[in-house]
Amino acid sequence: MAKPETIASAANPLIKDVRRAIGRGGLTSQGWCVAGTVHLLEEAMRSGCRVRQVLAAESAREQLPPLDGIKLAILPDGLLQKVSGTETSQGVIALVEPPEWKQEQLFAGQALVVVLDGLQDPGNAGAILRAAEAFGASGAIFLKGTASPFNPKTLRASAGSLFRVPFLYGMDPALAHAAFDEHRTALYAAVPARAGAEVRAVADVDLTAACALIIGNEGRGVGSEWRRVAESVSIPTVAVESLNAAMAAGILLYEARRQRSRP
Amino acid sequence: MAKPETIASAANPLIKDVRRAIGRGGLTSQGWCVAGTVHLLEEAMRSGCRVRQVLAAESAREQLPPLDGIKLAILPDGLLQKVSGTETSQGVIALVEPPEWKQEQLFAGQALVVVLDGLQDPGNAGAILRAAEAFGASGAIFLKGTASPFNPKTLRASAGSLFRVPFLYGMDPALAHAAFDEHRTALYAAVPARAGAEVRAVADVDLTAACALIIGNEGRGVGSEWRRVAESVSIPTVAVESLNAAMAAGILLYEARRQRSRP
Repeated sequence: MAKPETIASAANPLIKDVRRAIGRGGLTSQGWCVAGTVHLLEEAMRSGCRVRQVLAAESAREQLPPLDGIKLAILPDGLLQKVSGTETSQGVIALVEPPEWKQEQLFAGQALVVVLDGLQDPGNAGAILRAAEAFGASGAIFLKGTASPFNPKTLRASAGSLFRVPFLYGMDPALAHAAFDEHRTALYAAVPARAGAEVRAVADVDLTAACALIIGNEGRGVGSEWRRVAESVSIPTVAVESLNAAMAAGILLYEARRQRSRP
Repeated sequence: MAKPETIASAANPLIKDVRRAIGRGGLTSQGWCVAGTVHLLEEAMRSGCRVRQVLAAESAREQLPPLDGIKLAILPDGLLQKVSGTETSQGVIALVEPPEWKQEQLFAGQALVVVLDGLQDPGNAGAILRAAEAFGASGAIFLKGTASPFNPKTLRASAGSLFRVPFLYGMDPALAHAAFDEHRTALYAAVPARAGAEVRAVADVDLTAACALIIGNEGRGVGSEWRRVAESVSIPTVAVESLNAAMAAGILLYEARRQRSRP
């Protein structure tokens, strides 16, 4: 392996770039994801994503997996901590080329697409991707106005699923509509269960055919333009008006998987 | 209403006490929960919990609900922000007497008890309480070594369910065992789905009788002492070895509710 570079200054252009990416919750100027744990570095490698560079604190070198020729830079512990920001740091930051997906890949097989309609919390978005992979969703769509899939917090909450679940982001609703039409995808909008409302429970809806599950913004729910074209479905609850958005998405995906595995 | 007090100094004993409680993730020295949003203040009031005092930033006075004689102190905006710490502050902190529960209350009716076995993340613990209320669980047990129910982060993630779901905390496993025996409660331990493992899927287990669902620590899962006495159940997944602990708990609770509502 080539001798690792040493970066000791916060003024180093790469360091400044990574800090900006973390600060604004997006990609570096070169278009790389910031993956802030050893686990995410390993997930990127095993998912076949190209790791462009690893930054490691001096004290974290021992924890690194074999890097197989990946460029490595060593930073003083304090500088790496500073770059990581307030987040708990394990002393490792991997810069990863995000996978690129074609629309068809999201609809492969028995399509099950999760659609994020304006979710703001990157932790929720990442948790939904994790559940999407767990329950065999074919893809995810981040509609325009939704948290970025490339926010380091999204990536961390996804526990690496972001490297594997086909997704599109910043998508215009009209283009999403066209894609659903083209792939004959049934649309379901998750809405809170309310007494007296005529909404079918998710267990009573057939989720075995190609379908998309639309998850709304944490505050206002699924937008009215989607409510008009999608069938509303709810998760029957006893007492709380609405579940956390990621929890609701996970339960819908679980339910789809349960129906699809029935003998 | 009595004229509100004004607190202008960070050296005020109550202010120091509240900061300490937030810092260590627990109750104030007088045994009060720190509820850091207007929503949680309202939830405490509608849940019948005694609100001992409200601290509000000058600029947040307009957002307060009618306080009906609750003691109010006004703080300069900067001081309230300082007290709230790095968390986003809405300018309101309510100090709430936590509800106290008797063991029998957790087993009322068709018992469905969620047991937290060493969960460390207060956000997960709170999300589980929220799901527990949503799906009609009869109670929750925080075993010794689990995140505190009184951590302000637990309370916030519970969205107020902490004020209503009967719970016990810091409970010794032996006492929990005795309670389950006394109430003839079937025990199920949530374990990750693994290829080849002989574990029943949660949808194939009868959750309609009195039962407890044991959710393990985020890293090591359910402890071996519980694995020995409980039946292991899993959530069938396609690709990811384990779901987030709160997501897994929510799905188990959803499944129990689904089975219990079947005609």
